Amino acid sequence: MADYRAPIKDMFFAIRELADLEALSNLPDFEEVTPDLIEAILEEAGHLASEIYAPTNVIGDIEGSKFVDGEVKVPTVFKSAYQAFVEGGWPGIAHNPEYGGQGLPFLLSNCVDEMMQSANLSLSLCAMLTHDAIYTIEIYGDESIRSTYLEKMISGSWTGTMNLTEPQAGSDLSLLRTQAIPDGEAYKISGQKIFITWGDHDMAENVIHLVLARIPNAPSGTKGISLFLVPKFIPNPDGTIGRSNGVETASIEHKLGIHGSPTCVLDFSDAQGYLIGEPNKGLACMFTMMNRARLGVGLEGVAVSERSYQQALVFAKERIQGHLPGKSGNVAIIEHPDVRRMLLTMKVEIEAMRASAYVTASHVDKADHLNDQKEQHYHQSRVDLLIPIIKGWLTERSKELTGLGIQIHGGMGYIEETGAAQYLRDAMILSIYEGTTGIQAGDLVNRKILRDHGSALNEFFLDIQQTLDELSNLNDYPSIICERLSQGLDQSKKAAEWLKIHASKDVYSSGAVSYHFLMMLGTLMGGWQMALAASAAQKKLDQDKADKEWLKAKILSARFYAEQCMPRITTYTESIFSGSDTIMAYTLDQFESD
Amino acid sequence: MADYRAPIKDMFFAIRELADLEALSNLPDFEEVTPDLIEAILEEAGHLASEIYAPTNVIGDIEGSKFVDGEVKVPTVFKSAYQAFVEGGWPGIAHNPEYGGQGLPFLLSNCVDEMMQSANLSLSLCAMLTHDAIYTIEIYGDESIRSTYLEKMISGSWTGTMNLTEPQAGSDLSLLRTQAIPDGEAYKISGQKIFITWGDHDMAENVIHLVLARIPNAPSGTKGISLFLVPKFIPNPDGTIGRSNGVETASIEHKLGIHGSPTCVLDFSDAQGYLIGEPNKGLACMFTMMNRARLGVGLEGVAVSERSYQQALVFAKERIQGHLPGKSGNVAIIEHPDVRRMLLTMKVEIEAMRASAYVTASHVDKADHLNDQKEQHYHQSRVDLLIPIIKGWLTERSKELTGLGIQIHGGMGYIEETGAAQYLRDAMILSIYEGTTGIQAGDLVNRKILRDHGSALNEFFLDIQQTLDELSNLNDYPSIICERLSQGLDQSKKAAEWLKIHASKDVYSSGAVSYHFLMMLGTLMGGWQMALAASAAQKKLDQDKADKEWLKAKILSARFYAEQCMPRITTYTESIFSGSDTIMAYTLDQFESD
Repeated sequence: MADYRAPIKDMFFAIRELADLEALSNLPDFEEVTPDLIEAILEEAGHLASEIYAPTNVIGDIEGSKFVDGEVKVPTVFKSAYQAFVEGGWPGIAHNPEYGGQGLPFLLSNCVDEMMQSANLSLSLCAMLTHDAIYTIEIYGDESIRSTYLEKMISGSWTGTMNLTEPQAGSDLSLLRTQAIPDGEAYKISGQKIFITWGDHDMAENVIHLVLARIPNAPSGTKGISLFLVPKFIPNPDGTIGRSNGVETASIEHKLGIHGSPTCVLDFSDAQGYLIGEPNKGLACMFTMMNRARLGVGLEGVAVSERSYQQALVFAKERIQGHLPGKSGNVAIIEHPDVRRMLLTMKVEIEAMRASAYVTASHVDKADHLNDQKEQHYHQSRVDLLIPIIKGWLTERSKELTGLGIQIHGGMGYIEETGAAQYLRDAMILSIYEGTTGIQAGDLVNRKILRDHGSALNEFFLDIQQTLDELSNLNDYPSIICERLSQGLDQSKKAAEWLKIHASKDVYSSGAVSYHFLMMLGTLMGGWQMALAASAAQKKLDQDKADKEWLKAKILSARFYAEQCMPRITTYTESIFSGSDTIMAYTLDQFESD
Repeated sequence: MADYRAPIKDMFFAIRELADLEALSNLPDFEEVTPDLIEAILEEAGHLASEIYAPTNVIGDIEGSKFVDGEVKVPTVFKSAYQAFVEGGWPGIAHNPEYGGQGLPFLLSNCVDEMMQSANLSLSLCAMLTHDAIYTIEIYGDESIRSTYLEKMISGSWTGTMNLTEPQAGSDLSLLRTQAIPDGEAYKISGQKIFITWGDHDMAENVIHLVLARIPNAPSGTKGISLFLVPKFIPNPDGTIGRSNGVETASIEHKLGIHGSPTCVLDFSDAQGYLIGEPNKGLACMFTMMNRARLGVGLEGVAVSERSYQQALVFAKERIQGHLPGKSGNVAIIEHPDVRRMLLTMKVEIEAMRASAYVTASHVDKADHLNDQKEQHYHQSRVDLLIPIIKGWLTERSKELTGLGIQIHGGMGYIEETGAAQYLRDAMILSIYEGTTGIQAGDLVNRKILRDHGSALNEFFLDIQQTLDELSNLNDYPSIICERLSQGLDQSKKAAEWLKIHASKDVYSSGAVSYHFLMMLGTLMGGWQMALAASAAQKKLDQDKADKEWLKAKILSARFYAEQCMPRITTYTESIFSGSDTIMAYTLDQFESD
């Protein structure tokens, strides 16, 4: 079984050269965020990930979380690992210093999360959900809620959950039925929620649920949904744990992957809940948080692919099989061109995906911390545009990449003890939770592109064009990178034009092409970041002799991406231009094969 | 949990309209093979698959095969299902009538297999491996071997296995070490074999192993490998089971999927073995059989995708979620364009893949049963070309398609009890066993294309061109189908030209592009078959009013394939034109991210 080693060199390169660390350091809130500090934090988190979290991954998969006598029991090894995470102060690194957080950039928090996710996706989910709950409370909670809950959650001694789904209400939250009956200053919450990640467990002393529910006489549909905080145990005024609060775990799910992460069915029965934000505005509160959560899930796709890659790489270097023309004797399979193709597809896409996620996180930080309204708006629009792309594209690709991780192992990859299969099993949830790829794609084309008449998308295109203009002045820059980026940009512009024209004439066209549109823009974003990475590497090669081979590999990787990944844009756009006619023409009976 | 219903209408359409049933019926060996007979057999096998095999699928997955006190125990429900298969005479439908077989076409045997594979992939593997062993014995076994083993195997009372892999010898069989020491008229076989599908079990009274091993002083490498028949129990002269024969099961594997199928580690210790074929020619014997086995594995990709599709379709029709522009109230998710896109990707690719596999099987029948040498050569060349394509393309796509089956279910797809996840877990072995996709791709470009200087490939291209010429004369034929097929053909020709030129200059180029080449030709083959299917459907629409809607759907599906699948050919060819330079440029250190 391969160990996990945090890819700090690539992470730091992406932070510094692509995610604009300099600009972040210039923000008044982040004056102390120097490159040295970042590197030190990455090293320390990488140590925790490799030494403490990673060894619990397989045992968590085998043992799984269990539901015993009405209680959820997580794998025992998770408890001490999580304790180390809490003791290191990691849960709060990007949170409000007023409540014990360290107020570091969201970007950095994501980098730390990525390492924990690579090391143990199931376990890391607990902290991720808690992050999301904290953000929501930081923004929308009133003073009493903030002072009661934030410090405990930021320290990691209480964890958080998001309660959206009900059996009849999945992607369509308008159908939700959970009730919130006013009761003095609080509410009585009753209903059943399903698919609640880390909805209950024995790893922390309290679990704080954020729950979507309806107040009596609220408008129907999504405009009548409010958000409530419902603790598992009601805190005493001194901050200690009080009485149990009418939230019962009915069962936990038996899943394809993330076995260590308990996915709960929760029954709320007159549980005491506290309104977060305004009545009937719950969905808006949820969506503020959701942007961050979706970025986090996208990064989970990077994380699980990275660990899958590391293991496949070790195997490919050790496994002796076959000959190579011009070499005598048997060779390690990494020598075979087709195995190289698979390994490099993993490596290079992971780098492109990581850079894209970090750049997006950096835009989040700028949108949150810049004061200039115009600049703020620029970054927020970019965040809004990129979030569904990052969530959808990274998670879709992670299924393919972890599949390659199995394939590289041959027959050994299919044996569970090898460990490669777990990464695919775990990855398969990523394109589903926090909004399926279909939901992301619909959000992208309808809310993020058509609603502002393509203005944010145009700015995105303009920025890529600017990069192209700059690259054309460089000497010795591989021409294939510019050619393919330029071609991909042109094709994407044409697809955007197509969407604009057809969406107004055909109500089904945006839905029919949305998946291809998302994947097209994701691939383009990746190509853009790899092009920038290559030019940064080239500049550093001239100055810095230390990492020469590593920097040269970065340029090779941009070439590989241009050659092997960018051509997919053609396929996506050709499919887009076919529109919705054929897709919508089938009657229900015509879906039957017999 | 959705039931499985054999897609007989689509199967029969593919057999009759695409796989040239008429020509098969005209062969002297198949005079009795009328359309009515075929339909009756499909109906009967479909009944067995749906009623007897399908209900054992989930319990087989959950229970799995077990290794208890040195014995392999298969799930109990498998035994009666297999018994029904045996009693129906299904194991022998395409085998030699001299030994109790029914001598029906290989094509028909594959159709029956497909249904059983859809119904229960794990269980169907036992019969598939037995088929392969029977074919090998039919062709290479001497009279004594044939008379001792064939009748029992063709009746299904004894089953067969293929023993190739050893721990150090997977894709590279030249490394195998199992020894065969001459001992009178027989040999003593000693060594360890791994990954032996249905290598041991308690479902039949004997297991007949075909084992690759080395005779002392044999040439090294693949030229010193011989093939032996090694029974689990040595038969008595009267055909009853005699003494145990030094073959022990050391363990069975714990796998990602196909849990019901026991994958064994077998220890041979002075086991009595009988030479099959000539000494040191074992690999050639194995490869004769392998062509059929690889077609069968390709079809497993169709089968598992079909069942995944059927289940996703039922869910999509029942699951109410969201609104549709212009429709009031909530709708079933099958109404949403993006869900339709996913369902249709499954449906249409399955149809294209099924047709391609059947056409290949029909070429096998013609190659085996035609007397005219020129015709025979034409069909055999086509078989040789298509086998690696069918194996690689169908199994690679089955991973994607069964993944879509999960995605369509949303969160429910990730819950094991839903059943959608099993199809992906099962499908993940298909691109690995009987030669990985990398092995298929290498076989395709090196042995099947470059070795005959592209002559078989040219014939394939010419046949597609002929179809295009014919289609251009049709009225009302959707133009997009011809456009995309013509474009795909041109691109594939250019790629073939590229390969021819570069393979002679750069030893790595064929390996670097082989995967893309295989997928390109597979996609083209599918597009060709869908184009033919649409024209056949159009002709039938004019004559036959019975299945009007179904036939119209077939034309829609050819359009969908042209719009959504054919554009992938551009991506494959663009990647091919990039060659091996970048892929081979990385040093081993440059694969590291850190």
